[in-house]
Amino acid sequence: MRLSLSEPRFDSVIVRFGGEVWLKRTWTRRRYVRLLLRNMKRTLKRFGVAYDEFVRLRGRIIVKTGSAVEVASRLARVFGISSVSPASETSSGLADIADKSVFLAGQVLSDGSSFAVECRRVGTHPYSSGDVCKEVGRRVLEVFGENRGLQVDLDAPDVRLGVEVRDEKAFVYDAVVEGVGGFPLGAQGRVVGLVSGGVDSAVAAWLVMKRGAPVRMVYFDNTPFTDESTTQRAVEVARVLMDWAVGFPRRLHVVPHGENLKEIVEKCPRRLTCILCKRMMYRIAEELAERMGAEGIVTGEALGEQASQTLCNLRVLSAAVQNFPMHRPVLGFDKAEIERLARRIGVYEVSSHRAAGCEAVPGKPATRTKVEDVVRAEEALDVKNLVEGAVREVRVVDL
Amino acid sequence: MRLSLSEPRFDSVIVRFGGEVWLKRTWTRRRYVRLLLRNMKRTLKRFGVAYDEFVRLRGRIIVKTGSAVEVASRLARVFGISSVSPASETSSGLADIADKSVFLAGQVLSDGSSFAVECRRVGTHPYSSGDVCKEVGRRVLEVFGENRGLQVDLDAPDVRLGVEVRDEKAFVYDAVVEGVGGFPLGAQGRVVGLVSGGVDSAVAAWLVMKRGAPVRMVYFDNTPFTDESTTQRAVEVARVLMDWAVGFPRRLHVVPHGENLKEIVEKCPRRLTCILCKRMMYRIAEELAERMGAEGIVTGEALGEQASQTLCNLRVLSAAVQNFPMHRPVLGFDKAEIERLARRIGVYEVSSHRAAGCEAVPGKPATRTKVEDVVRAEEALDVKNLVEGAVREVRVVDL
Repeated sequence: MRLSLSEPRFDSVIVRFGGEVWLKRTWTRRRYVRLLLRNMKRTLKRFGVAYDEFVRLRGRIIVKTGSAVEVASRLARVFGISSVSPASETSSGLADIADKSVFLAGQVLSDGSSFAVECRRVGTHPYSSGDVCKEVGRRVLEVFGENRGLQVDLDAPDVRLGVEVRDEKAFVYDAVVEGVGGFPLGAQGRVVGLVSGGVDSAVAAWLVMKRGAPVRMVYFDNTPFTDESTTQRAVEVARVLMDWAVGFPRRLHVVPHGENLKEIVEKCPRRLTCILCKRMMYRIAEELAERMGAEGIVTGEALGEQASQTLCNLRVLSAAVQNFPMHRPVLGFDKAEIERLARRIGVYEVSSHRAAGCEAVPGKPATRTKVEDVVRAEEALDVKNLVEGAVREVRVVDL
Repeated sequence: MRLSLSEPRFDSVIVRFGGEVWLKRTWTRRRYVRLLLRNMKRTLKRFGVAYDEFVRLRGRIIVKTGSAVEVASRLARVFGISSVSPASETSSGLADIADKSVFLAGQVLSDGSSFAVECRRVGTHPYSSGDVCKEVGRRVLEVFGENRGLQVDLDAPDVRLGVEVRDEKAFVYDAVVEGVGGFPLGAQGRVVGLVSGGVDSAVAAWLVMKRGAPVRMVYFDNTPFTDESTTQRAVEVARVLMDWAVGFPRRLHVVPHGENLKEIVEKCPRRLTCILCKRMMYRIAEELAERMGAEGIVTGEALGEQASQTLCNLRVLSAAVQNFPMHRPVLGFDKAEIERLARRIGVYEVSSHRAAGCEAVPGKPATRTKVEDVVRAEEALDVKNLVEGAVREVRVVDL
């Protein structure tokens, strides 16, 4: 997007919703639009971006604002929005549209550049969308064509001038900023998201947020096998994630898990340490999900990435949880794909901060465990008591 | 990739593995490389592409072949391969490398183009990688620089000449074809994949294949609520998927499910039809997973995409399965993202073929079901019997 000094004086932002929102039944769609409006307003408020009002037109939301470029840039990161355009409003009169377009063209078309005009129209007008394109094109060429050496190029223009006509209003723009897509946060019930401070779990949590499910973030603090740096990193990652969820509780639930891990290390076969540790975490997450009214548990497991993440071990891990589905939205991602998304989300850098690894990880972790063996190993532990103890001592960190 | 008549006479293909393969312990890595070699050979054989031999060098596999471009194009679609380059082999003598590079440059550098030279080197040589770049660049400019107007551009060259030196051998190339990544198929245990003929389930199955897990494909035939066109579409989608899994059984397991669905429609609340139908499918899939020695069940559910895929309903669906994890690799994908991947996989077009929708879908499907309600509704059904009956009548279609 242009951010130069000669920035056009936009007065509006056109907000387009995800195509999937339009496939919903009327009632659901209305609820989604309400959620979207609420989330947009909260986001602009949190980041201190000024706006005057929100106007709902058919199939679009228009934000009236003197800071259109900044509003557009913030809203492009609100779940449920497919794209945004800073725009200038005018009436749906063809002459007004052409005037406004010429004004915009004068600011965005440099010498010798090519352009195309695109129009979308909803409502009854004395002209067709094609008429709009022709008239705007004609007027722009008339005014600037000769002295700026402009030309029309419908296939690969340097600039696309866009016109959206909605009943008696019209908006002209030159940039379509891709939004993050998905559904408005709150469209789905909530999940418990296990976040470690690494990229996998952060991306996993973000993906379900993108599809509308608010995430209650839970971190397992394995001190003394890790240290404060690891917790700190998780807090920082959680902060970045919550910037995508403005209006939802900014909290990280920290579960003291070091004592449990110590029991596992001391009393059970070392090659099973990670599996047993994770099963314990999942049981605690299940208990927390119950208390938080969540409907699922999300983890950052990617198939085959680590010894505990073989298909076989994932089965053993899932078997520890009875009442909630374990969701693994990055199951099929390569590490490189996770990292690419992490950069886009903004967690990559924070996640790369130095943090102590877990010192309880054995030299030869089992890649093919069996439920029977694991259950037998767990007989050495007072599982119920360990779970309850950990849940009792959960500490809530405000982000 | 170039496919013109003036195609350089390559004699080799450089195969690079996924970065994640290198993070594995020695034993696992060796197993993965063995699987990869087997899968590559089977793929070339199946598609009738000629090759002479496979040579394992440190960190690379080299395929010796007179059809380097075709081999490269096929291998780029083998899971576990991060990239491939058609190449010409020579000795690791600097003069030989330069000669070979000049020959290649003569074929791929057009008049006025810019180029850069890149070198990767493993082994002990009397020169550095930088020396190789300098010498090749110097020789290319010496031979073609003047009459073709070439220039070196290290930042954004038109052509990148690459040199890989591996001990006493060297390979020169000009194209790096991105591979599909992931892990070699067979690196993980198998899963049961529910495929409907739509894009979601196809992409979901493909994603776990990409991470190394072979998929036993299962299709539920809901005739008379659907018809033969739907089954046919599923068969076609399964065929495309199996082209990614050469050497693995080309079969689709078709479960007759129409009678079960009929029972559900007749005996249970209509708003629960889809949930009950899916729970029945999952139970059958669980039984099949047990018999097939699978370690999980994969579905194409995306959060919020359909009424049966709300977070709440996914929980109710998962509750039907006790002994296997339900994996939903496209849980966090938008429809547009699924379709983009479907195009790349090659299933998009086949999936778009007209097929009858399910006529049992109710007008108002429930979006927020409760386990208790669903369990009560199921009391009207002889679940055990229906599951066993369907499993008994599974038909295997050879693809």
